[in-house]
Amino acid sequence: MRIEKLIEAANRKKLDAIVATSFENVRYLSGVAIHTQHLIPQRLAALIVPVSNADPSFVVCTIEESLIQQESKIRNIIGYHEFKDSPIALIAGVLNDSGLPRGKIGIEMNVFTARQFNELSQYMPNIEIIPVDDVFDQMRMIKDPEEIQFLGKISTVTDNAIRTAYETAKVGDTEIEVLHTLTSILIENGAESLPFLNLGAGKNEVHTHPNAGKYKLSTGDLIGCDVGGRWQGYFSDLARTAVVGKATQHQREVYKNLWEIHEDILSAVRPGVLASDLYWHCYKSFEDRGMKLSLSHIGHSLGLVLHERPILSPAETLALQKGMVLAIEPATRDSSGKYHTEDLIEVTEDGYRLLSRSADWSELLVVG
Amino acid sequence: MRIEKLIEAANRKKLDAIVATSFENVRYLSGVAIHTQHLIPQRLAALIVPVSNADPSFVVCTIEESLIQQESKIRNIIGYHEFKDSPIALIAGVLNDSGLPRGKIGIEMNVFTARQFNELSQYMPNIEIIPVDDVFDQMRMIKDPEEIQFLGKISTVTDNAIRTAYETAKVGDTEIEVLHTLTSILIENGAESLPFLNLGAGKNEVHTHPNAGKYKLSTGDLIGCDVGGRWQGYFSDLARTAVVGKATQHQREVYKNLWEIHEDILSAVRPGVLASDLYWHCYKSFEDRGMKLSLSHIGHSLGLVLHERPILSPAETLALQKGMVLAIEPATRDSSGKYHTEDLIEVTEDGYRLLSRSADWSELLVVG
Repeated sequence: MRIEKLIEAANRKKLDAIVATSFENVRYLSGVAIHTQHLIPQRLAALIVPVSNADPSFVVCTIEESLIQQESKIRNIIGYHEFKDSPIALIAGVLNDSGLPRGKIGIEMNVFTARQFNELSQYMPNIEIIPVDDVFDQMRMIKDPEEIQFLGKISTVTDNAIRTAYETAKVGDTEIEVLHTLTSILIENGAESLPFLNLGAGKNEVHTHPNAGKYKLSTGDLIGCDVGGRWQGYFSDLARTAVVGKATQHQREVYKNLWEIHEDILSAVRPGVLASDLYWHCYKSFEDRGMKLSLSHIGHSLGLVLHERPILSPAETLALQKGMVLAIEPATRDSSGKYHTEDLIEVTEDGYRLLSRSADWSELLVVG
Repeated sequence: MRIEKLIEAANRKKLDAIVATSFENVRYLSGVAIHTQHLIPQRLAALIVPVSNADPSFVVCTIEESLIQQESKIRNIIGYHEFKDSPIALIAGVLNDSGLPRGKIGIEMNVFTARQFNELSQYMPNIEIIPVDDVFDQMRMIKDPEEIQFLGKISTVTDNAIRTAYETAKVGDTEIEVLHTLTSILIENGAESLPFLNLGAGKNEVHTHPNAGKYKLSTGDLIGCDVGGRWQGYFSDLARTAVVGKATQHQREVYKNLWEIHEDILSAVRPGVLASDLYWHCYKSFEDRGMKLSLSHIGHSLGLVLHERPILSPAETLALQKGMVLAIEPATRDSSGKYHTEDLIEVTEDGYRLLSRSADWSELLVVG
């Protein structure tokens, strides 16, 4: 189904074949999450899809062959021996066998390395290479109902993990102890890896990406996190801010303003709205409260990649569409600390649906 | 110091400048771990080192500027606004300002994407681009004493996490429960992320990269894992095999043979030995026991990258040198399951030093 849609897109671009080499697009087309694609990038895995033939070929390291046989319907598996065979030579072989020594071949130019590009050009001097990153981005941008349900599930698990970690934190606990509670819940809920775990309190909280350490929570500290787990290749990504012991009036007010902005952005979400307009809507919402938006983006889509298009930035050209998911994440900072909120939503026919909220975050949570 | 060494290497190659864009080499040269480099690859960070000037320039997204100001001595920081400015244009600007519009520029061709390569070539049509992946690989290959100590520390933590998870596992526990104990110890010891967590028991144990699930440990099951955490950008990576309840004679024997092979590989480690010869030494060690080595490599170096050179494979051309670290990981499988052991060692003047072992693994561990 996805391969048929890819072939339609390739035909519109008058391509003869598309070669996918990224973790995300190989996963998207084949259903197999080959994690070594992002852990060991030189262990190339490629899916070659000729437009004349909905029966693609899978060039993979022999180490991954059994995984693919088990989890994918793709039967043309061409294994290469790592450090011995060149996977690029095998890709060229498939293209030649498909009668495409002079074909127009779509490649992910943001993923294919300069060396791979040179090597493929040497094996196949007469092909024309066309970038197809946008073809894949636009396919993956509209999520299937199953993907939306799954992203909602792992986002809610993540929100609950953060909430539980905050609610059980006590004055004197270390940042690592809070993170431990949080990661325990992600692991218990089947996360296959924990790719980013930014958490900090007090003076560490203000950093963009703090690492949890031995700092002990103290009354009045802000505590913040921006964390994600990965399940079957899909990311969760949520940021939440709380305060330890008790909040000052100022902290409550800054948070309240940020939350109103957060909700104001959500209220502007519907199909047809430009992603860039959502950014400017947020910009104005900051201004209306006498605040200044200093972020270059206020959110992004996510899925098999942490930051997918549309990016909610002034430069984004895309309009929102039904079936997109968006991580909305305004943030602000002043001398009292950094305040950051994040929710995952689905763009629906007439607005949005929250996917990530396990609890009420409308007021600054006081913990400990 | 590292930058001076890089400039010496660049001079030997008659280069005018080197541009580093990978997480590992930017981290290695600057001391700053910019994790978004691997999480959000389009958010480019580049270190530009002209050979005429040991004062490099850092082109980074404004989001990362405060991190760099705080953690690095590099003062020439050129921030770009994400989605607005082109970081490649800024790199070209630095090269032009350094008087190098026709320079020989070293680039990591295994990291630089085909699109970045094209864009840089358009801005600077008269530069000559030279691959320098090997320059960096060979620099990072010999670890500093501090790196060796650090890799030993995080490897021992990981070994202890596996050992504790195995020793506290009981018949009826799920794979996830065992993984939970393991990851708890990694997080408590300050891991900043957990990039790969392969763990399986019984029928799941045989997969190359199993995901822990709800399968319950049963007497006679093999349990195996291949896991790693990340600290300040550095990886740990260990695989260990145990058995639940009690072992069969056959299981004990296969494990005993594998362990003898493991120790036999270690005994062959010393400076001057070819990495490929270590592979063949292992091959013969399998044969001597009536077994067949079916792996394409039996280990690898690691550090800021999970698989670094030298790779212990027939194709590797490098000889071992003092100061290298090696993950030695023979494995075998038969109808009774998969057996996999792994240790991290340092190559010393006259042999090796174990870096990873927190306990005795010489006999098949019986757990539960």
